[in-house]
Amino acid sequence: MDRTAVHPGRALHKVLTMIDETHDPHSETWVESAQEHPDFPLQNLPWGRFMPADGRPRTGMAIGEQILDLNRMASLELLQGEAMEALQKALQEPIGLDAGQRLALRRAVFDLLRVGGRGSDRARAQREHLLHDAKACTMLLPARIGSFSDFNAGIHHTMNGRQMRGDGGGVLPRNYHHVPIAYHARSSSVCLSGTPVRRPLGQTLAKGADKPVYGPVQWLDIELELGIWIARGNELGETIPIEDAADHIAGYCLLNDWSARDIMAWEMDRLGPFLGKSFATTISAWVISPEALAPFRRAAYARDSADEPLQHLLGPEDQRHGALDLQLAVDMRSRSQRDAGEPRHRVVTSSTAYLYWTPAQMVCHHASNGCNLEPGDLLGTGTISGPEPQMFASFRERSRIGTEPFRMGQELRCWAEDGDEIALSAWGNREGYAQIGFGPCQAEIMPATTGPSTKADTRP
Amino acid sequence: MDRTAVHPGRALHKVLTMIDETHDPHSETWVESAQEHPDFPLQNLPWGRFMPADGRPRTGMAIGEQILDLNRMASLELLQGEAMEALQKALQEPIGLDAGQRLALRRAVFDLLRVGGRGSDRARAQREHLLHDAKACTMLLPARIGSFSDFNAGIHHTMNGRQMRGDGGGVLPRNYHHVPIAYHARSSSVCLSGTPVRRPLGQTLAKGADKPVYGPVQWLDIELELGIWIARGNELGETIPIEDAADHIAGYCLLNDWSARDIMAWEMDRLGPFLGKSFATTISAWVISPEALAPFRRAAYARDSADEPLQHLLGPEDQRHGALDLQLAVDMRSRSQRDAGEPRHRVVTSSTAYLYWTPAQMVCHHASNGCNLEPGDLLGTGTISGPEPQMFASFRERSRIGTEPFRMGQELRCWAEDGDEIALSAWGNREGYAQIGFGPCQAEIMPATTGPSTKADTRP
Repeated sequence: MDRTAVHPGRALHKVLTMIDETHDPHSETWVESAQEHPDFPLQNLPWGRFMPADGRPRTGMAIGEQILDLNRMASLELLQGEAMEALQKALQEPIGLDAGQRLALRRAVFDLLRVGGRGSDRARAQREHLLHDAKACTMLLPARIGSFSDFNAGIHHTMNGRQMRGDGGGVLPRNYHHVPIAYHARSSSVCLSGTPVRRPLGQTLAKGADKPVYGPVQWLDIELELGIWIARGNELGETIPIEDAADHIAGYCLLNDWSARDIMAWEMDRLGPFLGKSFATTISAWVISPEALAPFRRAAYARDSADEPLQHLLGPEDQRHGALDLQLAVDMRSRSQRDAGEPRHRVVTSSTAYLYWTPAQMVCHHASNGCNLEPGDLLGTGTISGPEPQMFASFRERSRIGTEPFRMGQELRCWAEDGDEIALSAWGNREGYAQIGFGPCQAEIMPATTGPSTKADTRP
Repeated sequence: MDRTAVHPGRALHKVLTMIDETHDPHSETWVESAQEHPDFPLQNLPWGRFMPADGRPRTGMAIGEQILDLNRMASLELLQGEAMEALQKALQEPIGLDAGQRLALRRAVFDLLRVGGRGSDRARAQREHLLHDAKACTMLLPARIGSFSDFNAGIHHTMNGRQMRGDGGGVLPRNYHHVPIAYHARSSSVCLSGTPVRRPLGQTLAKGADKPVYGPVQWLDIELELGIWIARGNELGETIPIEDAADHIAGYCLLNDWSARDIMAWEMDRLGPFLGKSFATTISAWVISPEALAPFRRAAYARDSADEPLQHLLGPEDQRHGALDLQLAVDMRSRSQRDAGEPRHRVVTSSTAYLYWTPAQMVCHHASNGCNLEPGDLLGTGTISGPEPQMFASFRERSRIGTEPFRMGQELRCWAEDGDEIALSAWGNREGYAQIGFGPCQAEIMPATTGPSTKADTRP
C-alpha cells in the first residue's frame, strides 16, 4: 500500500484514485456501532461541526452511531507530526484542509479507531472522553457558506424539463454539451437536515387567470442533488486549470433544492429562479471526503465524440477518474403514515453516474471567467434524474407536472404535502469495499404561515 | 423642526420624509473643503469603512475631501447619550444601525461639524486628530456582503432588451407589473470603486460558428444601477411587511454590474446570467443614508391603474414617498484620451425616477417567500435606463448590440475597450437643498490574461 506523502496541486490522480489500507473492508473498529454501519463505517470518517450537550461548537468525525470529538483528541495528544498539524487546522477551519492534510488525518484516525491500529489502545481507553452519542448532539453547518451556486449537470433532468415544456422535444439546449450551466443560488436559506421546511408564500398565476394571487404555494417540489464543498478558492481575475480543480474540493454532501414550481412558472422570464427556490435548501451535515469516495470514482459521462468539451475543461485524469458512481434515493411518508408506524416509502432511485459534468469540470468552469471561489462555497450539481420514471429526481418530472400521481405506499402524490417527511440518501457500494453513506438529509413540510400582516384597508 | 425621537418599525413616513435642520442648505461647516462640495457637503454625512496610512480599519464619514474618523471621535467623548450609543454601534457593525440610531448620530455629527453647532468648538480644536485626507486613505467594503441579489426594476432597460431580442416587440413580459423580478448574483466578486476590472475569459459562440471558443470576451458592457444595503434581516420563514420594509435599508451606493454580453448570449438558457456577470461588480464605497436622501424622495412610478401591484406590495406611504429622484450619469475616456489630458466624456444620463419598483417593494418581495435577508446583503436595482437613447444605461442598449456606435469625445464605442476608464455617478439636486452625491464608482479595464495554463497536449 502506498504511503507516499501527498501534497496539494495537480493531485487528482494521486489522491482521488488512491486506494490504501483505509479502504480495506476487513479492518475492524473497536467502535462497535460502526461495524457494517451503512453510512459511517471505519472507512468513511466524514467530518462535521457539532455541539454536544455542553453547548460548545466543535469539529468531529462520524463513526457508526457516535461522533469522534476532534477537539478532545487534540488535547489528549494522540497524534503527532503531519497528522497533528492537520488536526490543529481541522479545529480552526476544517473546510480549508488540503488533500495532504485530509489524508494524514484520515490515516491517523483510522489507526486510532482500528482494532490493533497504532495508538488504538490509548484511544480506546479514552472512549468515554472521545466519543459522543450522535443522537445527543446538534449538528452545525460545516462552514459559513460564502456563495451557493447550483449547476444543471443532470442530463436527464434537463431533457425531461424541455420535453415537458414542449421546448425542443426533449432535445438538449444547444449549449448543453459545452457549458456546465449553473445559476447563483441563495446561501442564507441553506439549512441542515432535520430543519423543518415551511411551505412558502408566493405569487402564482392560476391557469386562465388574469391576475396573480399571493398565498401558500401548491406545487412544492424537491430536487435530489449532490453538494460540493469548496476547500480552496482562487484570486479574483485568476482561473483554476482543470488539472488543479479537484484539489479545490473539500468533500461532498446531499442537497435538496426545494422548489416552488408555481412561483417559478410565474416569476421566471430570462433571469432564472429566485423566490421559487430561495425559501429553503436542505443539506446533509457531514462532509464526505474525496478520499472516502475513492473506490467509487468512475470515468466521466460517455459523450458522443462530436460533443467533446473545449480543451480548458478536458483534464485527461478528470475524464478517466473524475466522476462518481454513487447510488441515490428519495424516501418519504405522510404524517398519517408516520403516525401509523409505517417506514418511509422509496419513491425515487438514481445514480450520480447521470451527471454530464464532473465536479472538477464544474469548479474549473465556475472560475473560468476569473470569478473568485472561496473556502466554504457550496456548489450543487443540479437534479440527478436517471432515464426511467422511477429515477426522476423531482416531483415535477415524477408526476409529469402534477398530471400523473406517483405512489407513496397507499397514498398518491404529485407534490409535497404538509406533514410529509422527505429524506434523500446517497451511498457508494462496490464489491470489495465497505459501503460509504452520506447520512441523513431530511425535512418535514410545515404548513404555510398566513402571510404578512398587511392592514386590511391600506389602499390610498 | 421636528426633533421627535425616531424608533425603528413602520417608520418610513417619519424618517424618510423627515426634513430637519440637517438638510438646511445654509448651514456652514468649518471643514472648508465641504462647503458646496458636489458629493459630500455637511448635509450628506455618508459612512464607510476605511484604512488610513497606519493600516488599521476604521469607520468614518465623508465630509468634503476629508474623512471624519469615528473611532477617534469616540475616544474624544464628544458625544453623549443616544448619539454616543449609536457611535459605539457604528464602530462595531455600522451596517446594522437602525433609523433612530442613524438619525441620532447624523444630528450629533452635523452639530459638531457645523459652525456654531453644539460641541463644534471642541471638535474643531481637534481637527488634526479627527480628520484624514481622503486621498491618503484606502476605502474598504462597508460590510461583509452576505448575499447579492440583482433586480430588474429599470422599466426602459427591460423594454429595450425585449425590443432588441425581437421578443414581444418592446412589450413588457406578462409578470413585469406584478413581480419585482430579480436573480441571485455573485457576492465574492463585488469590488470597490478604483479596483481595475480585468477583461474576462469565457466561452462564446461566434455568429454562424459550429463550436464555441474560449478566450477574452469582446462584448464587455456596463450596467448603471443603484445598490441597496440591508441593515436588518428577517428570520427564515418570516416575511417583511411592506410597511416595515424601508426600515430594513441601511443606505445606498452606486453599482456597476459589469456584463460580458457574448458570454451571456451563449450561456443563458432559462437559468439566467452566471459567468457573464460574476467576474466583477463595482460599487461606490460610501453608504448614503436614507436620511441624507430625504429631500429627494418622490412618489412611486406612475402606473396604469390596471397594473397595480398586489396588496402585499402596496404600502401607501411607500407609494407616496418611497421612490427616489436622483440624477445618474456615466462618464468615460480611453487611455489615449486620458494620456492627452482630456476629461471624461459623458455618454449616459439617466434618473432613478425610471425604477418601476421602490426599494421597499424590492425588500418586501425578496422576503415574501420567507427567504431570510441578512445585515450586509446587497440588492441591485437593475439597469436604470431612461426613454431616450442618451439615457440607455448599458452599452448594449446604447449601441444597439454593437451596431450603432456612440460617441466618446473624438472616439466611437460599442463596447468597453482595454484601458477605458468608466465612472458612474449619482446625485440628488433639488431647489432649496444642498446637492448630495454618491462619490466615485469607477474602474479601468485591464487586458485579459492569456488563459489558464492547460498543457498543450492533454487529450487522451
